Amino acid sequence: MSMHTLISQLKEPNKTKIVLLVADGLGGLPIEAGGKTELETANTPNLDLLATEGTVGLSTPVGPGITPGSGPGHLGLFGYDPLENDIGRGVLEALGIGVEVGPNDVAIRGNFCTINAEGAVTDRRAGRIPTEVCSRLVEKLRQNLKVEGVETLIEAVREYRLVVRFRGEGLGENVSDTDPLSTGLLTLEPKAADFASERTAAIASEFLKQAKVILRDEHPANFLMLRGFAKFPAIEPMETVYGVKPVAIAVYPMYRGLAKLVGMTVVDPGKTLGDQMEVAKANWDQYDFFFLHYKYTDSTGEDGNFAQKVAMIEALDAEIPKLMALKPDVLIVTGDHSTPSRMKSHSFHPVPTLLWAPLTGRPDLVTTFGERPALHGGLGQFLSKDLMPLAMAHAGRLQKFGA
Amino acid sequence: MSMHTLISQLKEPNKTKIVLLVADGLGGLPIEAGGKTELETANTPNLDLLATEGTVGLSTPVGPGITPGSGPGHLGLFGYDPLENDIGRGVLEALGIGVEVGPNDVAIRGNFCTINAEGAVTDRRAGRIPTEVCSRLVEKLRQNLKVEGVETLIEAVREYRLVVRFRGEGLGENVSDTDPLSTGLLTLEPKAADFASERTAAIASEFLKQAKVILRDEHPANFLMLRGFAKFPAIEPMETVYGVKPVAIAVYPMYRGLAKLVGMTVVDPGKTLGDQMEVAKANWDQYDFFFLHYKYTDSTGEDGNFAQKVAMIEALDAEIPKLMALKPDVLIVTGDHSTPSRMKSHSFHPVPTLLWAPLTGRPDLVTTFGERPALHGGLGQFLSKDLMPLAMAHAGRLQKFGA
Repeated sequence: MSMHTLISQLKEPNKTKIVLLVADGLGGLPIEAGGKTELETANTPNLDLLATEGTVGLSTPVGPGITPGSGPGHLGLFGYDPLENDIGRGVLEALGIGVEVGPNDVAIRGNFCTINAEGAVTDRRAGRIPTEVCSRLVEKLRQNLKVEGVETLIEAVREYRLVVRFRGEGLGENVSDTDPLSTGLLTLEPKAADFASERTAAIASEFLKQAKVILRDEHPANFLMLRGFAKFPAIEPMETVYGVKPVAIAVYPMYRGLAKLVGMTVVDPGKTLGDQMEVAKANWDQYDFFFLHYKYTDSTGEDGNFAQKVAMIEALDAEIPKLMALKPDVLIVTGDHSTPSRMKSHSFHPVPTLLWAPLTGRPDLVTTFGERPALHGGLGQFLSKDLMPLAMAHAGRLQKFGA
Repeated sequence: MSMHTLISQLKEPNKTKIVLLVADGLGGLPIEAGGKTELETANTPNLDLLATEGTVGLSTPVGPGITPGSGPGHLGLFGYDPLENDIGRGVLEALGIGVEVGPNDVAIRGNFCTINAEGAVTDRRAGRIPTEVCSRLVEKLRQNLKVEGVETLIEAVREYRLVVRFRGEGLGENVSDTDPLSTGLLTLEPKAADFASERTAAIASEFLKQAKVILRDEHPANFLMLRGFAKFPAIEPMETVYGVKPVAIAVYPMYRGLAKLVGMTVVDPGKTLGDQMEVAKANWDQYDFFFLHYKYTDSTGEDGNFAQKVAMIEALDAEIPKLMALKPDVLIVTGDHSTPSRMKSHSFHPVPTLLWAPLTGRPDLVTTFGERPALHGGLGQFLSKDLMPLAMAHAGRLQKFGA
């Protein structure tokens, strides 16, 4: 029996509240030999208090050495094995802007781009057109484009990005991207990798043919490319597996999409982390699992801005008392992966994690929250998919296994 | 999806260099209560520097409590699950002396032995005859022995040991050893454990019948025994799985054989560790994964010679600067298993391991290389099959998983 199956059998109702605060890309590296990481550098009195009273450790999102994208990173934290639940980028993008994706759908990411008279790509992002232009072009496509035998939905995301969803019978997802990945090259034809995807490829090809005509007099966005063809994966909702009523309070579309994927209710998060705290408070009685997502520890890491990542960690720390004031039974602070400023990218390094459960937690001897202190923590090093069972257990939501 | 499959999908080319230095049987035990292990006792300024700048931990070759042979121990370090890739000893012995083993072959270890007039074994190693005598006897067998319907190859290894390889259709490997394991007993008949191996057993029986006649006037090696019947396992080469071009610089046949098994190029290593370092330097531009094997930490442990094992560790330490001078992107120092002098044998104890990657490593607070310091290291305790993905990640040779 898998652990996932066992957990779903052992779950039991309780009135306890679990908060999962994900600081995206939280883990880091020293910027120079002998130095401290971003988290170790930051002044974090509130996180340190949680570390002192709680239990800390390091989580590995997928496996040793594997750098996860946001999808696998979050699936692990939500208690789903990222190796068994692979989600295509098109589906994530669609869910993130509120586009429903069902079993008969293929969702695809689109990029407006600029092509020259020969059809070669001169700008893969069409000069990063404003979102308003993107919306106007999407509307123009909607008015003029009609592929027979399939229901087509087109939605603007932002800037040069859009989502295309084909709905119909017999649409496989194994279709290649049309982005040549370099300027100066022609866009590619969508190609099916298996028989079940041939219809999808033909529909995408016709879609692109019509789009080229419709957009030809626009500038700079005179064409588009499709990538990340994906169907909705079969994932059991969190309520079925864990017996919790989950809510997502996340500002960025991707993370709202991921939350929907596992069956969370997605509420309006406001704009800032302070807003998110208020939203959590306002919804405290309606839900029992609260996923809060904080983007800026990742984006500053991606920018390679060590000092700004430190500042964003300190800004996060300052909001922690608002969560503690809600008196959650279990409060987890972690990341979906590391994003060291030094690497300017996601990385494979384990993620500092703390679990604070005043009634049921077993404290360790660690009194600060950081990568190196966490090596001595009570959670040890663990796969992030194991965090959700730990949260459930600390919240008194798992029966005994066996007699 | 298995981690192994995932890794092979995520691998990406890079110009980075990985060095895997295996000190055979590196891990140890204190010789008396309260004492230090061999590695903790040794004066190892260079390994300590690597531990300080790098990340340390303890690797478990197969699983908790499992004492590995050289085969499983090395397969794990090469990134193959030893439980899924079981390699027979006959194959290892054959590969180690350069005998090719293919899909239609069964490779078998042979021992010359001494039997008395009744056929009972009086010396299972025929008085450890010199290698020259072994070679003469092998040549005598080649000249006089002919089993119908199969291609037979016989090669001397050293002292009383030889390799026999049968090549032909329909040869299974599940045949029992003919060594009775005690003197005073008759040698055993080779017996098939399944239908597919009956032909192999019959061939082996005929081989032994003829050998007994051919050798009857020799002394002390007047017969031989066969054991470790094995076919070549289906193992994907390292280049396919990991995308590296690997080279083995190992003095002993067994380790060269293991390296060949996973598709490494095997080069002339010279005789000493100093020679091996020179060979690594000379081949630095031709390969990107360097496996160096150092035997003497194991053989001194097997001898129960604590002081000599300490000395061999210090001799290893003294060569480390030569590796650092090559500026590898990732340098790993570990063992394939522990060989505590106190136990005079391989053991199940986790193996101290260090990974030094100046650009991508996350240092911990450990400043010496040893079993107990490693307990506080950033690598934690891990299965040795996870080391190769970590090496790949630190070398920038794995793409991100998922969007």
